[in-house]
Amino acid sequence: MNLYYWPTIQGRGEFVRLALEDAGVDYVDVARLPKKKGGGVEALLAMMGKAGAPVRPFAPPFLEVGKLVVAHTANILQVIGPRLGLVPKDERSRIAAHQLQLSITDFVAEVHDTHHPIATSLYYEDQKAEARARSKHFIKQRIPKYLGYFESVLKENKANARRKGPFALGRASTYVDLSLFQVMVGLAYAFPKAMRRLEIEEEVSHLVALRDRVAARPRIEAYLASERRIPFNEDGIFRRYPELDA
Amino acid sequence: MNLYYWPTIQGRGEFVRLALEDAGVDYVDVARLPKKKGGGVEALLAMMGKAGAPVRPFAPPFLEVGKLVVAHTANILQVIGPRLGLVPKDERSRIAAHQLQLSITDFVAEVHDTHHPIATSLYYEDQKAEARARSKHFIKQRIPKYLGYFESVLKENKANARRKGPFALGRASTYVDLSLFQVMVGLAYAFPKAMRRLEIEEEVSHLVALRDRVAARPRIEAYLASERRIPFNEDGIFRRYPELDA
Repeated sequence: MNLYYWPTIQGRGEFVRLALEDAGVDYVDVARLPKKKGGGVEALLAMMGKAGAPVRPFAPPFLEVGKLVVAHTANILQVIGPRLGLVPKDERSRIAAHQLQLSITDFVAEVHDTHHPIATSLYYEDQKAEARARSKHFIKQRIPKYLGYFESVLKENKANARRKGPFALGRASTYVDLSLFQVMVGLAYAFPKAMRRLEIEEEVSHLVALRDRVAARPRIEAYLASERRIPFNEDGIFRRYPELDA
Repeated sequence: MNLYYWPTIQGRGEFVRLALEDAGVDYVDVARLPKKKGGGVEALLAMMGKAGAPVRPFAPPFLEVGKLVVAHTANILQVIGPRLGLVPKDERSRIAAHQLQLSITDFVAEVHDTHHPIATSLYYEDQKAEARARSKHFIKQRIPKYLGYFESVLKENKANARRKGPFALGRASTYVDLSLFQVMVGLAYAFPKAMRRLEIEEEVSHLVALRDRVAARPRIEAYLASERRIPFNEDGIFRRYPELDA
């Protein structure tokens, strides 16, 4: 499989990378290859400019799976999920996993807009006051709302009581768990003070347990320690701007 | 099928309503029923508070299909699409349709944020200056980017040349076409000046043709003329605030 995503950030592509890494799949992160080997951002843009397959992607990430080019993080995950054993194969589970992933998608878009509330095309410095206002509400309302939701999903998964979970869905790890891990570590990177408060208040104890469980999965542990894991930075979705972490 | 969505706005639920209407399905728009008949917002909230099925929805819209409760507009459409003949049944087409729908989802979220760039929980009046700034960029950059993308998808669909399209995908109308119709009429409601400019410049001629074609589909035409179609208003996603349509 060939993954196409920006080579210097975790961003939305990271949710796909985590799934591929956890499944132990041999994949190529195309834009991270040297230009000489057909890589670089050029390769990504060239692929994105191609019509068809069957429709061109609007934006990265997209994944080449056989003859298909699939775009949108959640769509990629639902396509590779059953193939890689990252979601149960029955329709009911697949729909539920995708539903959870789409809430993660929405949440991640809101994280992005904490530092870019006016326009993606403007620098952060040019929308700093608005970013501060948006982040204030994000920390006070949106983080508790979304994490509270995912926490209740974990609590309500009856399979968890009997197993080694918590799992978002059913009795085993799915791509949703990997994405929730990424959300938790991303938030801890971007909003360490706000997240510490939440953890201390134990309002997200299931999510914290899930995060630690995922981090200890052998392939994820190896990936996180490798150079393939791009460090968080201030070009990605989760950015550490202390002035926004009030 | 039972649809759960806010009873006084088109909002995100409208993309599902259009699909159900176009397919001629007998559905119940639960929250629009009188309270006495088990309707109202109360019924929606009660259903949303229920754990399981198999996971609780994060937000409306959600649709009860048999024993399943499916949330997220794009997820609902991909589940009912093949059942209602609103998308070809092969995997390739279903994935491509869903991919397009997810770009529509992102676009709609951006439309929402033109009037709520700081916080959903604040009144528009309390974020009017920021809304003006965001809308300026939205009109100048995001509308052309998204509509330009969808326009190129319509142009690149080779099946269109031979048939009565334009269609977003393949040789027949899909739920994606219905959603693109809604986006076009929604934008024309919210940003009439900006959209008139785009139309005059003929940069979206395929989208305009698609919009008119969808509007003339007998069931859609009947629906739009009925009381079931809630008029656009300033509580929904597409809002007409002349000060934002610069």
